[in-house]
Amino acid sequence: MQAVPPALERLITDFQKLPGIGQKTATRLALYLLRRPAAEARTLAESLAALHGSIQLCSRCFTFSETDPCAICGDPRRNERLVCVVEEPGDLMVIEKTGAFRGLYHILHGVLSPMDGIGPDELKIRELLERIRQGGIDEVLLATSSTVPGEATASYLMEILHQAPVRVTRLACGIPMGMDIKYADEHTLARAIETRQRMGE
Amino acid sequence: MQAVPPALERLITDFQKLPGIGQKTATRLALYLLRRPAAEARTLAESLAALHGSIQLCSRCFTFSETDPCAICGDPRRNERLVCVVEEPGDLMVIEKTGAFRGLYHILHGVLSPMDGIGPDELKIRELLERIRQGGIDEVLLATSSTVPGEATASYLMEILHQAPVRVTRLACGIPMGMDIKYADEHTLARAIETRQRMGE
Ligand SMILES: [Zn+2]
Ligand SMILES: [Zn+2]
Repeated sequence: MQAVPPALERLITDFQKLPGIGQKTATRLALYLLRRPAAEARTLAESLAALHGSIQLCSRCFTFSETDPCAICGDPRRNERLVCVVEEPGDLMVIEKTGAFRGLYHILHGVLSPMDGIGPDELKIRELLERIRQGGIDEVLLATSSTVPGEATASYLMEILHQAPVRVTRLACGIPMGMDIKYADEHTLARAIETRQRMGE
Repeated sequence: MQAVPPALERLITDFQKLPGIGQKTATRLALYLLRRPAAEARTLAESLAALHGSIQLCSRCFTFSETDPCAICGDPRRNERLVCVVEEPGDLMVIEKTGAFRGLYHILHGVLSPMDGIGPDELKIRELLERIRQGGIDEVLLATSSTVPGEATASYLMEILHQAPVRVTRLACGIPMGMDIKYADEHTLARAIETRQRMGE
């Protein structure tokens, strides 16, 4: 389409690679930035360029962090005997916002999905077992989503943690079935944490 | 929120400055990029940084372009006796996609909006009158949106073009009232162009 300058076309194409951004939204965003002062696009460009450079995975909980251990793992006021297992760093961020959880985390970086070739070895499950083996953990709260793969992952973890010397709990009902916890409102999520249930009871 | 590394927080904040991007979407986009190879964020950063550097306004139609005149104004196969007046470069892009229009364009860069302090002097209206004064234009097709400010802008232009030696037309009904033309489907828009009406008839 000759109507679109190549530099604009390129940005629209790049925006479209982001999840949930279609052609119309990508075009709208690119034109918006073009109308605004160049400094705004440059600021966003700098934030993007700097993203990976300073961020790594915490070697303990595997969340994204600029320090190792991360701010949460390194905070002596947190209860290190309670570990909350989540799918993604985004889930940790949502739970932190509720203020209802004062333990530590363990990020799986995904859910079991045999169809996509994602088995236990593709997730940070071996690392979770190693943390438990080292001792000092009383309770593991499984906070995977109430989606089918989230539930399957929780069931799998409950199974392999059966013999481990820890209590295994699951977020309480309160989160609508089939909903990714990232979309839960803070209030519902806080309540689900407070009324968490031991699995298999 | 200590759960979010500063570089990630900064990107989320920058994404939120874009229109229609709230905190949840901004967070989702930033985390997506963080999970992907660093090259993807870098590619997007480069496209953003290059955006303004190579793009300027065409001195004839005022669309965004890397050349002056733009590819459309410089194309000898276009009908230069027919000029389509639109609000924004995005509208030009939508009309070009229909393939129904073979004339040239004139971008107003906004609509009249007295409440926001946007009067005729803030739009490229003087430049439109100058193009008409130079001659060679038979028809001016007013393709502003069918929103209240879009209609008001069309009425204003019809008024001041009343004495000019050009035929003034308006996009035909077919576009739902109150809809910004950016959201019209291509088919409806193509039809509205084909059945365009002379104003004041
Ligand atoms: Zn950590
Ligand atoms: Zn032009």
